[in-house]
Amino acid sequence: MITVAVLGATGYTALEAIKILLRHPHAKVVAVTSRQEGRPPIASVHPSLVARLDLPLEDLAPEEVGKRADCVFGCLPHCASAEILPQVLAAGARVVDFSADYRLDDAATYRDWYGHEHPDPARLGATVYGLPELFREKIRDAALVANPGCYATSAILPLAPLVASGLFETDDVIVDSKSGVSGAGRQPKLMTHFPECNESMSAYNVGRHRHTPEIEQVIARRVGARPQVIFTPQLAPMDRGILSTIYVKPKKAVAEADVMKLLRDAYAGERFVRVVDHLPGTKDTVDTNFCDVTARVVRGRVLLISCLDNLVKGAAGAAVQNLNVMFGLPETAGLL
Amino acid sequence: MITVAVLGATGYTALEAIKILLRHPHAKVVAVTSRQEGRPPIASVHPSLVARLDLPLEDLAPEEVGKRADCVFGCLPHCASAEILPQVLAAGARVVDFSADYRLDDAATYRDWYGHEHPDPARLGATVYGLPELFREKIRDAALVANPGCYATSAILPLAPLVASGLFETDDVIVDSKSGVSGAGRQPKLMTHFPECNESMSAYNVGRHRHTPEIEQVIARRVGARPQVIFTPQLAPMDRGILSTIYVKPKKAVAEADVMKLLRDAYAGERFVRVVDHLPGTKDTVDTNFCDVTARVVRGRVLLISCLDNLVKGAAGAAVQNLNVMFGLPETAGLL
Amino acid sequence: MITVAVLGATGYTALEAIKILLRHPHAKVVAVTSRQEGRPPIASVHPSLVARLDLPLEDLAPEEVGKRADCVFGCLPHCASAEILPQVLAAGARVVDFSADYRLDDAATYRDWYGHEHPDPARLGATVYGLPELFREKIRDAALVANPGCYATSAILPLAPLVASGLFETDDVIVDSKSGVSGAGRQPKLMTHFPECNESMSAYNVGRHRHTPEIEQVIARRVGARPQVIFTPQLAPMDRGILSTIYVKPKKAVAEADVMKLLRDAYAGERFVRVVDHLPGTKDTVDTNFCDVTARVVRGRVLLISCLDNLVKGAAGAAVQNLNVMFGLPETAGLL
Amino acid sequence: MITVAVLGATGYTALEAIKILLRHPHAKVVAVTSRQEGRPPIASVHPSLVARLDLPLEDLAPEEVGKRADCVFGCLPHCASAEILPQVLAAGARVVDFSADYRLDDAATYRDWYGHEHPDPARLGATVYGLPELFREKIRDAALVANPGCYATSAILPLAPLVASGLFETDDVIVDSKSGVSGAGRQPKLMTHFPECNESMSAYNVGRHRHTPEIEQVIARRVGARPQVIFTPQLAPMDRGILSTIYVKPKKAVAEADVMKLLRDAYAGERFVRVVDHLPGTKDTVDTNFCDVTARVVRGRVLLISCLDNLVKGAAGAAVQNLNVMFGLPETAGLL
Repeated sequence: MITVAVLGATGYTALEAIKILLRHPHAKVVAVTSRQEGRPPIASVHPSLVARLDLPLEDLAPEEVGKRADCVFGCLPHCASAEILPQVLAAGARVVDFSADYRLDDAATYRDWYGHEHPDPARLGATVYGLPELFREKIRDAALVANPGCYATSAILPLAPLVASGLFETDDVIVDSKSGVSGAGRQPKLMTHFPECNESMSAYNVGRHRHTPEIEQVIARRVGARPQVIFTPQLAPMDRGILSTIYVKPKKAVAEADVMKLLRDAYAGERFVRVVDHLPGTKDTVDTNFCDVTARVVRGRVLLISCLDNLVKGAAGAAVQNLNVMFGLPETAGLL
Repeated sequence: MITVAVLGATGYTALEAIKILLRHPHAKVVAVTSRQEGRPPIASVHPSLVARLDLPLEDLAPEEVGKRADCVFGCLPHCASAEILPQVLAAGARVVDFSADYRLDDAATYRDWYGHEHPDPARLGATVYGLPELFREKIRDAALVANPGCYATSAILPLAPLVASGLFETDDVIVDSKSGVSGAGRQPKLMTHFPECNESMSAYNVGRHRHTPEIEQVIARRVGARPQVIFTPQLAPMDRGILSTIYVKPKKAVAEADVMKLLRDAYAGERFVRVVDHLPGTKDTVDTNFCDVTARVVRGRVLLISCLDNLVKGAAGAAVQNLNVMFGLPETAGLL
Repeated sequence: MITVAVLGATGYTALEAIKILLRHPHAKVVAVTSRQEGRPPIASVHPSLVARLDLPLEDLAPEEVGKRADCVFGCLPHCASAEILPQVLAAGARVVDFSADYRLDDAATYRDWYGHEHPDPARLGATVYGLPELFREKIRDAALVANPGCYATSAILPLAPLVASGLFETDDVIVDSKSGVSGAGRQPKLMTHFPECNESMSAYNVGRHRHTPEIEQVIARRVGARPQVIFTPQLAPMDRGILSTIYVKPKKAVAEADVMKLLRDAYAGERFVRVVDHLPGTKDTVDTNFCDVTARVVRGRVLLISCLDNLVKGAAGAAVQNLNVMFGLPETAGLL
Repeated sequence: MITVAVLGATGYTALEAIKILLRHPHAKVVAVTSRQEGRPPIASVHPSLVARLDLPLEDLAPEEVGKRADCVFGCLPHCASAEILPQVLAAGARVVDFSADYRLDDAATYRDWYGHEHPDPARLGATVYGLPELFREKIRDAALVANPGCYATSAILPLAPLVASGLFETDDVIVDSKSGVSGAGRQPKLMTHFPECNESMSAYNVGRHRHTPEIEQVIARRVGARPQVIFTPQLAPMDRGILSTIYVKPKKAVAEADVMKLLRDAYAGERFVRVVDHLPGTKDTVDTNFCDVTARVVRGRVLLISCLDNLVKGAAGAAVQNLNVMFGLPETAGLL
């Protein structure tokens, strides 16, 4: 039984990870941390866990967390994450970092998009990106895995095979994404206050969302060519789910069937990418680790449509998939 | 043209009042206040007001507010309201207070339910309760009107005629209410954070919601007999609307038609109470100043079902209705 | 491995049952039926099942269904169910009937509430009601189990221990329930058309909802005393979840702690009933087989508040729990 | 007082038109039609109209409708509309047609996109498109006005000034739109059944939505150049509102301020187009006749973001705006 500690267990991605692990046949949550005082039971913060997980929220030192578990799920905010995880790694645990801290290639890009110096720059670029569909072999032996961003996964999975094919313009890619509100985290803010965001659609962080360089660098790392992406995140009035509509320009005319074949070939053996003929809705993937993808050709332009659950394939499910790969477990354990 | 100032204009009831007044043929918003510095345009806080209301949010002294307008809508939190409104009144304006501060009969009850001393106890009991259907004559000449609570209106309107009839037990009244989230105000909190309250129903403040004594005292004031109410507020995943299901026990068997007649007779001339045969839904009343009411007899018990828009008939619409009565305008002006 | 066939597999409760069984270690779906022609893959009707369940929808004769599987989940409309299930039983399968056909005690009550003659009256009253918390022993050996109604479970679980105690008036019970829209099934209707029911709360079938006699008869069957219930179902704008607020009158004053103890004692060993101190929300139970229950005393009256997921503990989860009991599997298999 | 008849009054756009006209100082609904028998009161179909509009739904002949009112709002499905409206016009009324029948330039395009022959081809191309911001002068004297499609308005208003400028590629325009569910009408369907579309985002009619040629032809008619548009409609889980995110390629680099100036200049005197600096959300425009527009430059590409209420500026509000222009009333009457 692989033991797992969850660092920063009061948020939504941590809760989702715990729920998945409660059904996992070979892994088990043994510690959950937060800065709250007094060791309150985790179920006092997440009432859905009453009678399901009987652990206190502990304010543990990073070394202690690293000693308690085989694998640590880091659910801390960026920057805080890269300050603490090195100590967790030093204590001997392997780590899946849910934050963005280890996803990018270099400290300069990190500074540009995140607005501060990276606390642990040496590991940037050297850390494997936790998308098993693209980097499975490197994940197997990794001590630290950078769990992907939710939007990024919804864009990288459909885009990577097209960029790899060399048949498309790399400097003319538009990713128009719509996300449920849980993606914004559990900290109350006006933007996510129910009467503000319910019954409304709006764009935010246009041109400056931090998943932009992540999408570009990760695809470049995998397939050689680096796309330039215009990424527009939008908030939809629902709990979960991301729908990404991606517009790609072929160098010369392509048939829909050929694009579908590119996708099908790329993900032929993959259990969690479903290349489908119909137009998928986010609800088809909610509470699952699937990413559904399809393609259409409209007036010469290729549309890729992908959807996934931002808390599962976009966060906690991907983390468990990574854990499975890292520890030699069946990759689907706990996830079907 | 009656001039109106809105004290505390950043919240939802203030915004709703402003929107109603923008369509009002005989009243006009001339000042809006908040504690924000720098006189930002109100549209920077409420973007729906762009190109509709060109006023700055001003941090005005109460006396100044009282001089600027014929009528002041007080949209401040309770306690703060009773500290400031006396000065507004002293400056000569008439006031509709959206807060709960002047709704109850006495300082002791206020202390019990609100947890602090009333800052202006002399006006308690002496202030008219702004439900024109029950207290129209007193509202006409009032300097200060206590605008009703949203839940309270949804309970008082259907209950009052039954209590007045003497045909029902007064100590066995259950009010089971379901409210949209805007009723909780605009301050972000975990309870009203979208991923918490969306797709969920839950009860809160069971047995201790402050509209309980308001319902009881107001009915007693109007009809003599004081009911004892068990009031259960519940949060529903929608922006607006209150559905109250009220269970009343007849002293001896009554027919549905007789209960309907009681309601129809009570509200025969009333423009904003619709006694309907069908089971009304909150959506029938959204964005209107109507309260829809019906009755059923089930196994000897009478069910009253009422619905209204908590921001309109439950707050801002009622305030404008009060303003119309106070200033001798047509009672429906701006409200149909 | 227990084999399961799902009769009438195109609706929501059938889909939910399939999803739960996909995670079940000891049971497996082997056939799914519908009247659609041409054996379309079930994933063409339920796209969330793509790559998860590779079975065609077959238009099978009841006898054939009964031969294909150890256990048949009947997800047919009432009346149709009792016409077909006898043939399924005759073919040797054991059956969990999701419809209301076998829940009541007698054909007269059935006729009164369902408006037609029962097609198989001999089994009425003789069929066990599939609430393991109340009837576990009888379920073990049953060939046919009547799976409970969703509202009924939310009312029976909290009410039964109180009625059993003899401390409460049995003729003064009010059940005020709020349900998500999936409870109305998958057939499009105006009432469940998104722009009609979204952002609205409304009551329906007041005084004549068919779960009324079910609640009364089942409690009577278990504890001897028959309560008389006023049951008010209400539609809330959410996919899943039932919140029931139940008002019960004690014969003489009771303390909250004593009511909580009644509940705790009744469900001490039960894995799927959580007696909690806090006020639970439906979201705490969504996608789980839990029913959360608490109690409050307000002005002498006892309030019971319960919540559950209408598609899980209110339907498919309960069915799997019944299957587990019937076939000697761990009762929680597939459900945690 | 201008008299208005509403043809086909049971749907959402008709209801919205009626609500707006109830507040209109110079226009009045005098007849409402549907094919229902027995002249039921319109409030029996639209309960929000109880005590507000006391008219029966009548099954009137087109000539009769044309005689009853100065202006007829045609809220019929396409094709049915062009079969009936010629008779209404012949009877002397002026008409605003909410259907798509008279929006396109020619019968061939209509046949391609709507799949049948146009019943009244002579008026195609000759009918003015009812977007006052673009065609105000022609609307003044028109007997028949083709009221714009909701998506089309959200795309045409921001796009037209850019296409007119000559600074942008016309063959590389992407319109990615997200709409509330009321846009799909009031007829229950699986796609708009609450548990299907709630908590989900999905694309539909990709590459073949009928507003595509409408956007292209109308812009061409107004500004000379015809854009080629890739239009992706998507369903969002909300009642109302369209958010359109439009990607346009400049021929050479443009500054954000210059694009904003193009928009500001184009709509300087327009009361219902708000060119705003912030990123607008659909909720800013709900229940109003405003279309909010802004622009951003991201990596050399121009993003236009627009939002409006599909039932108001996207349908009934635009119709009333057209009526105001047609009958020489203040253009904002009933709309602010």
